[in-house]
Amino acid sequence: MLEYDIIQTRGFSNVVEGSRVTGFRLLVRMPNYRGAWGSLLDGAEVTVDGRAFPRESTRWTLRGRTFTLDELRRSTGVHWDLDELATIIVPLDGGLTPGVHDVAVAIYLRSPYIPAFVLPLRFDARRECTLVPPGTDAGFRYGVSLYSFTGDMNTVMTLEDAMADIADLGATGIEILTQSTVPGYPEPTTAWIEKWQRLLETYRLTPTNICSWVDNQMWPDRDLTVEEAAAQLARDVQLAHRLGFGFIRPKFGVISPELDPHPTWEETVLRTLDLAAELDVVICPEIHSPTPIKHPVTQNYIEFIERTGTDHFKLMIDTGIFQTVVVNDGHPGFDPDEVPPFLQPLKVPMADLAEVLPYTGFIQAKFFEIDETLTDLHIPWADIVRTLRDGGYTGWLSSEYEGRREPYRGREQVRRQHALLRSFR
Amino acid sequence: MLEYDIIQTRGFSNVVEGSRVTGFRLLVRMPNYRGAWGSLLDGAEVTVDGRAFPRESTRWTLRGRTFTLDELRRSTGVHWDLDELATIIVPLDGGLTPGVHDVAVAIYLRSPYIPAFVLPLRFDARRECTLVPPGTDAGFRYGVSLYSFTGDMNTVMTLEDAMADIADLGATGIEILTQSTVPGYPEPTTAWIEKWQRLLETYRLTPTNICSWVDNQMWPDRDLTVEEAAAQLARDVQLAHRLGFGFIRPKFGVISPELDPHPTWEETVLRTLDLAAELDVVICPEIHSPTPIKHPVTQNYIEFIERTGTDHFKLMIDTGIFQTVVVNDGHPGFDPDEVPPFLQPLKVPMADLAEVLPYTGFIQAKFFEIDETLTDLHIPWADIVRTLRDGGYTGWLSSEYEGRREPYRGREQVRRQHALLRSFR
Repeated sequence: MLEYDIIQTRGFSNVVEGSRVTGFRLLVRMPNYRGAWGSLLDGAEVTVDGRAFPRESTRWTLRGRTFTLDELRRSTGVHWDLDELATIIVPLDGGLTPGVHDVAVAIYLRSPYIPAFVLPLRFDARRECTLVPPGTDAGFRYGVSLYSFTGDMNTVMTLEDAMADIADLGATGIEILTQSTVPGYPEPTTAWIEKWQRLLETYRLTPTNICSWVDNQMWPDRDLTVEEAAAQLARDVQLAHRLGFGFIRPKFGVISPELDPHPTWEETVLRTLDLAAELDVVICPEIHSPTPIKHPVTQNYIEFIERTGTDHFKLMIDTGIFQTVVVNDGHPGFDPDEVPPFLQPLKVPMADLAEVLPYTGFIQAKFFEIDETLTDLHIPWADIVRTLRDGGYTGWLSSEYEGRREPYRGREQVRRQHALLRSFR
Repeated sequence: MLEYDIIQTRGFSNVVEGSRVTGFRLLVRMPNYRGAWGSLLDGAEVTVDGRAFPRESTRWTLRGRTFTLDELRRSTGVHWDLDELATIIVPLDGGLTPGVHDVAVAIYLRSPYIPAFVLPLRFDARRECTLVPPGTDAGFRYGVSLYSFTGDMNTVMTLEDAMADIADLGATGIEILTQSTVPGYPEPTTAWIEKWQRLLETYRLTPTNICSWVDNQMWPDRDLTVEEAAAQLARDVQLAHRLGFGFIRPKFGVISPELDPHPTWEETVLRTLDLAAELDVVICPEIHSPTPIKHPVTQNYIEFIERTGTDHFKLMIDTGIFQTVVVNDGHPGFDPDEVPPFLQPLKVPMADLAEVLPYTGFIQAKFFEIDETLTDLHIPWADIVRTLRDGGYTGWLSSEYEGRREPYRGREQVRRQHALLRSFR
């Protein structure tokens, strides 16, 4: 699906020709109610951070062909469809700096059935767009969890849109959620699995982690037996493998306000470890606020790893545990008048992270809001990145946006997070 | 695509069992970020116009199977996917009255990984929903133009969504726009045409009118020759026929502030009349504000019909010409500080409509805003419907919403218009 805004989140980038950065591009959808012949297009003024670029300087790509404005005006058979984006290319030596820009366009169209004194029609659009720097990184692998797009998925974006977004911002990993992402779960159709594999190839993405649940308290009157719990986990490990994932996060039912997992968790994992080893899928319980690292729940997981000597059970660290400032945006499903415990700042010290890195398989780069200066309001990224690098972590950082749910917000916020994470060298 | 709101526009209707109306139904999307097992669903309180219906009384349809809440709680293997709507069925003898209702739901979910003292999670949603009465009408055929969904198409709704919406509100006709609706125009792929035909069958819709343009001033430096103009019109008449349309509206370029069509219009139509007759497609120029019926442009069309004796050139009346009150919402592309001429009230008298009905092929039921009491703020529907009925018109009334462009607004407004039009017997 195209974005409702005329200026699209995806595709905002510098133009590289040979070894030189010669300008930037933005993608726009047709602002008028009807498609247009290229010859009726009267150009667009583009303004970035207050600097205006004249209409005559831009080039346009429509249906895969690139034109100057003058070529468009004289063109025949070139059509801008409503379901197709136009690319506006603006020459600018050196291009734009990475980060958030204030982008405005005024698109002009002639329309012969409207009297000439009214023409051209003028369509204005303006928004903040984030340019993610390509290539450079601090030695990690970068991915995005589809949790970031909660609310947007199935409403304003398809699975393919999500994958196109991830590829467009230069990440290579995709994290999904069994019950949320896989239609017909737990038995997706072969057609869906083939589509999933085709999309992975198209967007050159690697499946990273799949989030799953062991719903121990699935029914009101009794808990799952350990056989049932192990069967649930085994089923999801098999699904993870079938979809190409190397990590699976099972969320167990809890039995206390302190989030102690159901006592069958250990036996459930034990019974699944051989299968996990056989399929090379690493089971990762999530260390998530309000549970810190120095806590019996986390320590029990570490003891389990040491006791079993397994390579297929590791910690997943959710960076929400390093949160330093309260998040006041509420959370769907929770009492709007209270801040849920997991949105309170837990401030886990970096030393604790360093200590558990040897046991850590995967990192969910949880965040809530990054402002237009690329400052994260809650999560201390400079500290986290330094600790990870010093500790030799070279695995995935998988973006997990958990801030306000407004259409398209997650998409833009994830771009900001990647622009921020790429700023650490 | 599902609607971003939890409560969906589509599907809000009374439940008929045998000859009795036993309740009403609404469609909701999963409000949580993960799909849910039916056994974790703790019901929903539904409130309509302040009247609350208790959770225990509702039934739920998931993946095509219907359950009481108690059956859901005990169920195994029933899953509410994120890309799937749940239907909530509320018993109410006689059902709800046609029109706009204030609908609220509170959906409750248990989630075992969250401590019990916080559960169940509660998700609230509230909106105005319109119930369109089925079947009854004033003897016309009812359709919807996809123009009504401008901005929503390709962003929050697909072609199939549009067709599902039209069928859901009980209309049987679909009007489209060549350059807006047909990807790859003027040469859609065979695959697209097959999809179009399959969707028509699925939703039992009849193609009504296709809007097209003859862009006489296609290039800045010269006008189309009459041969070029006739070729454009012939191409679109052929496309109309191929897609199953019986009417085509060509919009010619204009040459004056009074909207006189390009002088080649007559010769263009003359050259196309044989083809139109052969394919049985009626060419309908649009009588659109600010051009009234008693105006040389309209009168010239009527003289053409009389002179040629053709059955394949008729008037299309856009009901915006009957507008009685100014529309202050502006229009995309036009100066936001001025009311464009076509949004000024033209107040064409009903006697003029009665006079041209014998020449009229198609009616675009243009409107801008219908409030929650089903009052149209600008268009005098009671007068129009009476005049059409008295004049023996039994053709299409094709909804054309042209009010404010906000996501989903057109969908809800079109339902209101149909509820209003169906109130005339």
